[in-house]
Amino acid sequence: MALRVGVIGGGQLARMMIAPAVELGLDIRVLAEDEGMSAQLAATAVGDYRDLDTVRRFAADVDVITFDHEHVPQEVLRALVADGVAVHPGPDALQFAQDKLDMRARLAELGAPQPDWARVADVAELQAFLDAHGGRGVVKTPRGGYDGKGVRVVAGAEEAADWFAALGAGDALLVEELVPFVRELAQQVARRPGGESVSYPVVETVQKDGVCAEVIAPAPGVDAAHLEEAARIGRAIAEGLDVTGMLAVEMFQTEDGRILVNELAMRPHNSGHWSQDGAVTGQFEQHLRAVADLPLGDTSPHAEWSVMINILGGPADAGMLDRVPAALAASPNAKVHTYGKAPRPGRKVGHVNASGTDLEAVLAEARAAAAAFA
Amino acid sequence: MALRVGVIGGGQLARMMIAPAVELGLDIRVLAEDEGMSAQLAATAVGDYRDLDTVRRFAADVDVITFDHEHVPQEVLRALVADGVAVHPGPDALQFAQDKLDMRARLAELGAPQPDWARVADVAELQAFLDAHGGRGVVKTPRGGYDGKGVRVVAGAEEAADWFAALGAGDALLVEELVPFVRELAQQVARRPGGESVSYPVVETVQKDGVCAEVIAPAPGVDAAHLEEAARIGRAIAEGLDVTGMLAVEMFQTEDGRILVNELAMRPHNSGHWSQDGAVTGQFEQHLRAVADLPLGDTSPHAEWSVMINILGGPADAGMLDRVPAALAASPNAKVHTYGKAPRPGRKVGHVNASGTDLEAVLAEARAAAAAFA
Repeated sequence: MALRVGVIGGGQLARMMIAPAVELGLDIRVLAEDEGMSAQLAATAVGDYRDLDTVRRFAADVDVITFDHEHVPQEVLRALVADGVAVHPGPDALQFAQDKLDMRARLAELGAPQPDWARVADVAELQAFLDAHGGRGVVKTPRGGYDGKGVRVVAGAEEAADWFAALGAGDALLVEELVPFVRELAQQVARRPGGESVSYPVVETVQKDGVCAEVIAPAPGVDAAHLEEAARIGRAIAEGLDVTGMLAVEMFQTEDGRILVNELAMRPHNSGHWSQDGAVTGQFEQHLRAVADLPLGDTSPHAEWSVMINILGGPADAGMLDRVPAALAASPNAKVHTYGKAPRPGRKVGHVNASGTDLEAVLAEARAAAAAFA
Repeated sequence: MALRVGVIGGGQLARMMIAPAVELGLDIRVLAEDEGMSAQLAATAVGDYRDLDTVRRFAADVDVITFDHEHVPQEVLRALVADGVAVHPGPDALQFAQDKLDMRARLAELGAPQPDWARVADVAELQAFLDAHGGRGVVKTPRGGYDGKGVRVVAGAEEAADWFAALGAGDALLVEELVPFVRELAQQVARRPGGESVSYPVVETVQKDGVCAEVIAPAPGVDAAHLEEAARIGRAIAEGLDVTGMLAVEMFQTEDGRILVNELAMRPHNSGHWSQDGAVTGQFEQHLRAVADLPLGDTSPHAEWSVMINILGGPADAGMLDRVPAALAASPNAKVHTYGKAPRPGRKVGHVNASGTDLEAVLAEARAAAAAFA
């Protein structure tokens, strides 16, 4: 009988789990937020992931629960675990992906390198931190941010006054030093419940307006010491936080050569999409193998270089699917991935992967295909 | 709006079209023969592909019709075309995959190299052919054979007497010379309605008991002249027969160095499964691109060598899915593909692909994974 994997959330990450699930013979079922979402093909239920009864009904028919996103409330997750449901990653791990203050505190306990940071409850506390860090800093809401939302670079504490005013009693904001980085990196690790783990080569991510735009795998010019350091940090966090499934560690490479942890994601992540077509085992297959407690796959790249470029939505009335033929024509080597989402300006609606031996040529191929959607 | 591709037949070939259809943003719909078939996830209809009303209803909601098999009757295909439905491959092409006598006659017109053959209507005609070819030959029923069924090696015409007795009025059998071959090859070609085509590297296929067991891509030790000759034959047949979608040409390499055409398949074929994981564009994606008239993809291999090994069903009560973990553990490099079919002895229930730089190592990895299912 097929192992039944239940995915909470019907977005593109769930959608991209469908292909490897079919091949591996896993029975994938999705609890989608709405009809017609990205993962519609495998959606067996539609409902609110914050509602325990809805999630419990969905979980009753699967062997393991995993996620398209990290937003399922802790009380729902813990009720499932109390019911005896296998949940991967589990609530103890997900807590650190859900709350950035908890993450910073836990990473400090683990000794993971990270920017200076503080928990600040009011304008005065924030200003004190800024004064000690050259007058500037990055203020973050601990919960609910993504793709640059909930993140603000400030040059004075008053610039976050509205966020403080909106805080509940006992809540606080996170402030971090503004790290002088030369580039951003990301490390993917997959870990099984029993502890077996595998690492992907560290990649360079290029952000535009706070959103991941391009990924190059492996990170160009990264030396052996940084490769090993990134992998070591990834493994230490996966183990220290007891992450199961895919973990993405977003990192800064600083001007003085350090690697500092920026953000964590406990699921397949945009910075790992290259591996779908560029590695022996793509991150979506690997995530399924990890959460279903199956032996993990080889993470070796197929080619010297792989590039991923996101496709962002254009004008709301443009049909991105109409442009797929032009993208395929622009580069026979490009792999186009669509998300089945209505385009809205700036919304991620797909991505393009390309691989080869010459980085400049691979970048040109991927960009030519992506340009068809611009 | 997504292009809607309707696949007639719900077997593993339709199943393996699902993954690339999702990524490309094609709306794939399957007319399955029964509930619970391999392509169940995309099955939007269940019914008899020989029934025109059933097929017509299915075709009314799609933009192009293609196939999991070649068994849809000519009268059904021609009625669809008369209705204005895009059918790829079309009935004129499929006729030559459906009737081996028609195929032999047409290949002769095209000048494609093939074994000596004859249309034989009775035992005496067959014996005359055998007498002229060393006393032995291969007798085939023109229609309905697959995986060694409908094929019989005979040393005397009486051995086919039962088949002659079962022939309808005006029907005949096909007899071919027994070719002294050193190995079997297969050539994959994809062709769009407008005529654009791409070729894959010729592969070696190893048959056991008339069923494809292993495929090595590219065919080991094949010289440049044979590579080009195989590709030339493939292109000539694709063009000459106006094939749209994937074409597989199964061929003999003879002791005296000739290449002779054995069989044709106008769909993704077992001999092309390696390309799913071993080439930039797998044959299932390529077939969809070709039949949907999208630009074709790069057919370059990822690695020096790729190997495909079929998984055949064991005892009827053995659950092949229970063995997937052992297969994944046996080789982290192996890609396991399951067909969602109940195992029966000898039935193809899945396959394993592996790729790498050392053919012996790749064979060992693929065989280790496949052995977990034995």
